[in-house]
Amino acid sequence: MKKIITKDYATMSELAAAIVLDKMMLSKRVNLSLTAGNTPLGMYEILIDKLQKMNFDRSNIHYYNFDEVPLAGERYGLTMSALKTAFYDRVHIDDGNLHELNAQNNQVFDQKILQDGGIDLIVMGIGEDGHFCANMPGHTSFEREIFAVPFEEGDEIYQSIKNLTDKEPASPYVTFGPRTVLASKQLLVFADGKKKAEIMKKVLEGPITEEIPASILRTHPNVTFILDEEAAALLEN
Amino acid sequence: MKKIITKDYATMSELAAAIVLDKMMLSKRVNLSLTAGNTPLGMYEILIDKLQKMNFDRSNIHYYNFDEVPLAGERYGLTMSALKTAFYDRVHIDDGNLHELNAQNNQVFDQKILQDGGIDLIVMGIGEDGHFCANMPGHTSFEREIFAVPFEEGDEIYQSIKNLTDKEPASPYVTFGPRTVLASKQLLVFADGKKKAEIMKKVLEGPITEEIPASILRTHPNVTFILDEEAAALLEN
Amino acid sequence: MKKIITKDYATMSELAAAIVLDKMMLSKRVNLSLTAGNTPLGMYEILIDKLQKMNFDRSNIHYYNFDEVPLAGERYGLTMSALKTAFYDRVHIDDGNLHELNAQNNQVFDQKILQDGGIDLIVMGIGEDGHFCANMPGHTSFEREIFAVPFEEGDEIYQSIKNLTDKEPASPYVTFGPRTVLASKQLLVFADGKKKAEIMKKVLEGPITEEIPASILRTHPNVTFILDEEAAALLEN
Amino acid sequence: MKKIITKDYATMSELAAAIVLDKMMLSKRVNLSLTAGNTPLGMYEILIDKLQKMNFDRSNIHYYNFDEVPLAGERYGLTMSALKTAFYDRVHIDDGNLHELNAQNNQVFDQKILQDGGIDLIVMGIGEDGHFCANMPGHTSFEREIFAVPFEEGDEIYQSIKNLTDKEPASPYVTFGPRTVLASKQLLVFADGKKKAEIMKKVLEGPITEEIPASILRTHPNVTFILDEEAAALLEN
Repeated sequence: MKKIITKDYATMSELAAAIVLDKMMLSKRVNLSLTAGNTPLGMYEILIDKLQKMNFDRSNIHYYNFDEVPLAGERYGLTMSALKTAFYDRVHIDDGNLHELNAQNNQVFDQKILQDGGIDLIVMGIGEDGHFCANMPGHTSFEREIFAVPFEEGDEIYQSIKNLTDKEPASPYVTFGPRTVLASKQLLVFADGKKKAEIMKKVLEGPITEEIPASILRTHPNVTFILDEEAAALLEN
Repeated sequence: MKKIITKDYATMSELAAAIVLDKMMLSKRVNLSLTAGNTPLGMYEILIDKLQKMNFDRSNIHYYNFDEVPLAGERYGLTMSALKTAFYDRVHIDDGNLHELNAQNNQVFDQKILQDGGIDLIVMGIGEDGHFCANMPGHTSFEREIFAVPFEEGDEIYQSIKNLTDKEPASPYVTFGPRTVLASKQLLVFADGKKKAEIMKKVLEGPITEEIPASILRTHPNVTFILDEEAAALLEN
Repeated sequence: MKKIITKDYATMSELAAAIVLDKMMLSKRVNLSLTAGNTPLGMYEILIDKLQKMNFDRSNIHYYNFDEVPLAGERYGLTMSALKTAFYDRVHIDDGNLHELNAQNNQVFDQKILQDGGIDLIVMGIGEDGHFCANMPGHTSFEREIFAVPFEEGDEIYQSIKNLTDKEPASPYVTFGPRTVLASKQLLVFADGKKKAEIMKKVLEGPITEEIPASILRTHPNVTFILDEEAAALLEN
Repeated sequence: MKKIITKDYATMSELAAAIVLDKMMLSKRVNLSLTAGNTPLGMYEILIDKLQKMNFDRSNIHYYNFDEVPLAGERYGLTMSALKTAFYDRVHIDDGNLHELNAQNNQVFDQKILQDGGIDLIVMGIGEDGHFCANMPGHTSFEREIFAVPFEEGDEIYQSIKNLTDKEPASPYVTFGPRTVLASKQLLVFADGKKKAEIMKKVLEGPITEEIPASILRTHPNVTFILDEEAAALLEN
């Protein structure tokens, strides 16, 4: 485990972009799994800027979303919509290089990833409750591979998704499980801001427990955590 | 995770030996961490036989013991003594290529491993209580790196060691913790015989929990389990 | 570069089999490129024996032939026929895991390999003229990727193939070029017998030159040469 | 081989810095071999800026210079002096993490690199004559590992060094040979400006020959070339 504390969000974003760019420039097929949400927006702006100034064969770069919440009556779910807006639709990606995990294919997606050569890099944020991908406390366990979680209108999870979007979430949501994530060759976890300080203390320095799902990420042989000073404020080591 | 079920102990031993030989023949420094005990004896006989028929530069092959129980008044502890008898003293190994973990250096050994380039392969058996290395249920937790466990004459651990040897164990014993093991590039776990069937069912198909320490090994991105038919008898998948 | 000299052909074959078995047991997709010819026959017998005693999911193991000479009126060329007889047809391999290079697809096969994740291991013998795969002296250059070589009935190449089989070779033959081979993650080169001693001296200790195509293999970052004592008899270092 | 053409020198430098930063942030020992000269100056400014904004354990990052020309009466030679001025002395590097190749230790340095775990990344420029490191046309061959080249005051090489510095070069100069470079896990080659256009055409699209030493770099399984538009102006593919 490598832990890096940056002066600010901009540096965190630049370092995350560096790790992604490194993979894109390799002379081999590269399978990336990038996160939606607010944390990566700075990283995406840098990637988009750099890709506009680079002329190279991108056919080796493949993308896999690591979770999805279907939206009623929409072609793309919450994650894919966000990824398309923030990154995919702003750079050139061939259809054949976008590999969509969804509620239809989640039972065969671990096998697909294996046959595609495995995920080279997953870039993830951490929720204030300690979730990663959609491994929510109480709804995941360390032995899970990709799985689906059915939900109903009254459920907490329904509400929390509802708060993110004005669209109607449709059960079930799907996600890479802990073992799918930990089977990746490299993990990058980033977090910024005061509101992440408490959970990052638990994730990095507390017990490894399913109550804080992201705590398991510390066990990966090739994981880097990048935190800005605010998110790292409560760390002791 | 890869799971292989072999017809018998001999095949299990040959496959384990193949994985170790593959590493020995690489054109790079290779750091190996091999197990003492009964399970590997067949593997060591094969390795010794092959090494006698091979002429090559072995200066790239380094060995690290992953646990140790000091023995009162002895130069080497329980693990190193067993490794020397079963393997080290029967093949040519330069002193500079043997890296001994013991009760004196365990606090700096994780850093030493990092500086030495990391462990490339750990070969481990599993105890009937689900322990790996010396991560005994109730005496380890998933977030541990290398650690020492003090014990006294009345303790269960003292007795179980006493039953293995006629020598006097000396506190504390030391071991790679779960995070040290999981930081290795490759893990090989093997088990044979009826008496391992129940624990292997738990390790491979039960919950990932500190009560069965070896259950965490399933999360490693490059782990292979080799079981003979008897040890695999209770597996469902 | 790692060089291993074995007492005999049997040990050479066992070590080669160990390297292949190691790859087969990894928990990831593995793309293998194995050789036809006489040198590997001992290795294949070991692999077939071991695979019969192993119960495991082989869906991650993929095979790519690295050269081919079409045979007039036959479904399979010289290489695929030999591989099927020696190995493929004697172990279970799903059609989807056999990737045939031939005179029809050779222009897109480098791109296919890239998209399939690259070759993890190529196992090769060396011809007495220093060729590897079908990179014959005078008919290859170091900058080539996969290429086709047309030939006619009078040509030396035609005759040498004719001597190997009673079937009619059909132009062109195709082969991984030096850059395709060197782009692989690991190379295993083996040679046995007195008749290989002179060429192995040139390959391993002479200048790196297109006149001895296999001399370039020494530059790969992860190449192992396994020679029996007879093939190594003229080496100085 | 991966080839990337950037809009300008600044983007080339940012991408090179990204690849180096990626390595620095890995949770393992990383052995870097970085180049002196003018090409990397932009990259070093970015690295220095980023490192000032990052708080992390750098004890895993090791540096190896890949060539050296001793300077009469000076503690450091031409390369180390330039590296110290441009980078080493401007960021915190412990003495134990700086591994100096020089005229005294060059005969044991390949073995040292092997024992240190190999070089993870070499960052190189290309000379207008096609040299890389100090592999000058006419003074190297592809089978060389680290070697020393004696020279005298009248020699061309003496003059070209003399033109770079007002200090007196002292024979011999030493350099990673082609096989040392190609044994590295990853190579990054960069070039900018019109004056590099002709040689980059030869290096990337001409025959692989000792007359253009850098042409051999195309054969590495993990090599990335980054060129600005001017240096790439004559490329056809």
